[in-house]
Amino acid sequence: MFTLAILSHHQQIDVANFSLNAEQMGLPKELPIQISQSCLVGGKQAGSRIITLTVGETTVRIVPTRAMAVLDAVRNGVRFGWQSPVKEIVHPNFINQEASGGSGWLDGFNEMVVRCGYQWAGHPGQDGDEFLTLHGRIQNTPADEVMLEVEQIPPYRVTLRGRVDEKRFKSTNFEVETCLSLSIDEPYLTIEDILTNKGSYDREYQAIYHNNFAQPILEKGALLHVPVKELSPFNDYAAQGLEDWNKIPAPTKDFDEMVFNVRPISDENQLSSALLHNANATSGIEVTYQTDTLPVLTIWKNTDTEQQGYVIGIEPGTSFAYNRRYQRKLGLVPTIQAGETKRFMVRFGLLTDEHQVSASKAHIDALQARQACQLSTRPLVSLDA
Amino acid sequence: MFTLAILSHHQQIDVANFSLNAEQMGLPKELPIQISQSCLVGGKQAGSRIITLTVGETTVRIVPTRAMAVLDAVRNGVRFGWQSPVKEIVHPNFINQEASGGSGWLDGFNEMVVRCGYQWAGHPGQDGDEFLTLHGRIQNTPADEVMLEVEQIPPYRVTLRGRVDEKRFKSTNFEVETCLSLSIDEPYLTIEDILTNKGSYDREYQAIYHNNFAQPILEKGALLHVPVKELSPFNDYAAQGLEDWNKIPAPTKDFDEMVFNVRPISDENQLSSALLHNANATSGIEVTYQTDTLPVLTIWKNTDTEQQGYVIGIEPGTSFAYNRRYQRKLGLVPTIQAGETKRFMVRFGLLTDEHQVSASKAHIDALQARQACQLSTRPLVSLDA
Amino acid sequence: MFTLAILSHHQQIDVANFSLNAEQMGLPKELPIQISQSCLVGGKQAGSRIITLTVGETTVRIVPTRAMAVLDAVRNGVRFGWQSPVKEIVHPNFINQEASGGSGWLDGFNEMVVRCGYQWAGHPGQDGDEFLTLHGRIQNTPADEVMLEVEQIPPYRVTLRGRVDEKRFKSTNFEVETCLSLSIDEPYLTIEDILTNKGSYDREYQAIYHNNFAQPILEKGALLHVPVKELSPFNDYAAQGLEDWNKIPAPTKDFDEMVFNVRPISDENQLSSALLHNANATSGIEVTYQTDTLPVLTIWKNTDTEQQGYVIGIEPGTSFAYNRRYQRKLGLVPTIQAGETKRFMVRFGLLTDEHQVSASKAHIDALQARQACQLSTRPLVSLDA
Repeated sequence: MFTLAILSHHQQIDVANFSLNAEQMGLPKELPIQISQSCLVGGKQAGSRIITLTVGETTVRIVPTRAMAVLDAVRNGVRFGWQSPVKEIVHPNFINQEASGGSGWLDGFNEMVVRCGYQWAGHPGQDGDEFLTLHGRIQNTPADEVMLEVEQIPPYRVTLRGRVDEKRFKSTNFEVETCLSLSIDEPYLTIEDILTNKGSYDREYQAIYHNNFAQPILEKGALLHVPVKELSPFNDYAAQGLEDWNKIPAPTKDFDEMVFNVRPISDENQLSSALLHNANATSGIEVTYQTDTLPVLTIWKNTDTEQQGYVIGIEPGTSFAYNRRYQRKLGLVPTIQAGETKRFMVRFGLLTDEHQVSASKAHIDALQARQACQLSTRPLVSLDA
Repeated sequence: MFTLAILSHHQQIDVANFSLNAEQMGLPKELPIQISQSCLVGGKQAGSRIITLTVGETTVRIVPTRAMAVLDAVRNGVRFGWQSPVKEIVHPNFINQEASGGSGWLDGFNEMVVRCGYQWAGHPGQDGDEFLTLHGRIQNTPADEVMLEVEQIPPYRVTLRGRVDEKRFKSTNFEVETCLSLSIDEPYLTIEDILTNKGSYDREYQAIYHNNFAQPILEKGALLHVPVKELSPFNDYAAQGLEDWNKIPAPTKDFDEMVFNVRPISDENQLSSALLHNANATSGIEVTYQTDTLPVLTIWKNTDTEQQGYVIGIEPGTSFAYNRRYQRKLGLVPTIQAGETKRFMVRFGLLTDEHQVSASKAHIDALQARQACQLSTRPLVSLDA
Repeated sequence: MFTLAILSHHQQIDVANFSLNAEQMGLPKELPIQISQSCLVGGKQAGSRIITLTVGETTVRIVPTRAMAVLDAVRNGVRFGWQSPVKEIVHPNFINQEASGGSGWLDGFNEMVVRCGYQWAGHPGQDGDEFLTLHGRIQNTPADEVMLEVEQIPPYRVTLRGRVDEKRFKSTNFEVETCLSLSIDEPYLTIEDILTNKGSYDREYQAIYHNNFAQPILEKGALLHVPVKELSPFNDYAAQGLEDWNKIPAPTKDFDEMVFNVRPISDENQLSSALLHNANATSGIEVTYQTDTLPVLTIWKNTDTEQQGYVIGIEPGTSFAYNRRYQRKLGLVPTIQAGETKRFMVRFGLLTDEHQVSASKAHIDALQARQACQLSTRPLVSLDA
């Protein structure tokens, strides 16, 4: 195993810019494996870093400075991710999450995989005595103990770990061990995060994996396939689009966003999958997740203009995107006990041919065949004025 | 043309400290042109940078880290700028604009040219659903794509460009191309900024160029000359000083500030000028601006003690300094359409002899001669308690 | 005298990592004096620095990036300080003091000596028009002009200075010259801070030296000795623990914190001392302070579990820990006049044998013998609901 400590307080290591090829990592010289890190400059990205992993046909970019977010992935020429109007990889120091009614988080929102949580996730607003900012604090927290591991035998699995803390005296004492891995022989990118409550008291927590996808997969005629137990619109506006919830329109001025709440069907291993594929079903993104810890799915249909960030979110979570105050009665604000760990697994299938797409669709159809889909026309929650 | 990319995300360039003389830029060796950048250390200026341009008799210092602000200028031994009690060039990361009721901006306020805007400018407070912090976000945004250009033929114009973004997902999508230039043969410093709305939707915007001047020009007996169409006090306190609005007192304890709202007279090219000169009219600052995009002028008379920052602001803007909620009914909250650009031009005449001063005064007198000055004793706006 | 400018805007010096032994500082080679600085990496400590002073039997770590806080001290194998659940030395750029109702300060709270002030200290909340965040702004302000001085004759006093500014245009214009010193022959660490009001107007101010101690001194059976004129519980919960206010329990789940307000007895030099020693009185921390500027003492008994940060605060201050709005009527919101300076002296006795402990106890007993201790069962202040 080749290992490299990229950033570590304990080891006093901070590697900054580097680039390693297969040979330099003790791998067969001709293997298409390349790892590098780049320190960004200019504007609000000063201090941000990008780690690029090329493993076989897949290149994935990770932002350790923003909680090990996945910026994007490219496989066989197909890009997975989106084009946010926010172009910079904004360093957390330039984000004030309290700004503008708790929506400052949006100043840096542009990655493919964005973690929301873990003290809370969801929309900003008051929850009892607490004011919650949009989607929690984790995404604007830089990682420590960023470690690379490359297996030196087939399938040459490459693993990137990083720890992200969410701590405040007398409050949350969470540590998140993030782990992203991929290997040379498969179209998968796997995220396995372990949340630990290091405090002496049980705490509420929430997690949403805000996974975002756009062109070239997203286009007029693209389709979502989700094995649905129950589906309901997030609010009255989404209710108007309920019938077409899984059909993708062209970029549409004034569409803004429609959000759908899904309780998915999962298999005997507690796995469920959602698929978005392009109009002719030749490429797609499959999001597979463990429903024991991520029991619900948010579909965020933000098919406004390209400049506004034409994008679909496929977001497994402990919770929907409502403010936390609405979700206790839905049973979607779980507790993590003192010393307990919670494991979140999300696997991304980067599908770049029609066989992969149709296999994924068949798998989802089989899940749906187990149970009828219930569509509710009314939001689960009556939002305050 | 000699060009230097000083800071560029696209080119992955970050030059940090440098100093170039005329010869190093391919200019005649004896030319008094010198360009340098210094990276600051210590306290809250860690990370801030200053670019110093010496061009003939003029030396000007620019802060790329703070939206290309002009810290000060010195020409023929006369300093243009002021002495704020804030001494550090505070890096934006140490500014929390939401602090203290939205006045955290004041923690870093000390430059000669401070941009206010562009989503909003003016006093903090609620405007409908939005809480607006003092004078908007642009000044606490570091620039990217900072580019130097030096013409290699007379008059050896030196131009410094930088791009400053103001972007939030589902909100403002503004880019500002700033440009500052000066040449060896003239006492002028010219700022030409281009604001572009990169989003798909029309947006309100505001801009105020908060230009601040103090000693040695500001002193007891110094005078302001402004071609006035209409002038009114900002509030009841300023109304008490209306008669002497253009006369400068010595530093005065408990003076605090009086603000005057001016609708200026401009010429056929939509240019207007304001002049502040010292008591014996041997030096002065002339602020010339394009009134098609900057139709109004705020005079900020902050002639309190030297320790408090004895200073005058001569501030062309789209708007006065009121909170935005007051200015829609005044017609001073313009809209920039999707894809549209707005151009702001402000030129600073760094006048260091009596002929320059009297020529400027004559020009302003000529403008005033076109139209009578209307003084209103009552504020335009009835401020909430 | 050996002097070293470690960080200075004026001298454009920023030494970063260094380590100097006695010989390198011109001292006798065998002297146990060693000075170093380490720049931290990883997570939210990126940009933070630690200066380590080893002088004889004492090693003390200072954080210049966080207002010259003392992280901890070790003498003869005894550690003075505590184990906060916050493990990182959090750079101020990652702290948003306005967050979560003004309690963002707690995101970085883990040092042995934490300065609270100087515009305000105490609990967050509204005070008239101002919203005050927990314990003021100074602790999240990096120092400038960090200077080391080492005397080259016995007792080889080592002094570390740093300036911390608290400035806002039209508001506070404070400069704090901090000074920490120790010598080879004594178990003392002395802090002498000078606060100057550089503005033209008198200002209210507050200061609390939030000094925090835990294991090995803090344990079941450890005792506090304080010469008390008047003691009262901070609130109704503390009133329940009044009888045992100076007795230390083992780490106790659900204890949370009890706070006691003390008006101490001081000697003819206006000095008072408080002592915390371990169960068998073989080690202890003695906090001595000048009561002319720090007239009151807060005892913060936070003897919850180890994971929650089992800790005692011994906190001399101008004020108690209430929000400022409660303290004016207690006479605990002093004024610093324009141009005036205030001097704060706090000396830490790092006691590591029973003789030192018993001598300290005897001194405190003698102070107590001068005057009876008045215990009030009711809080001084009636807290709002």
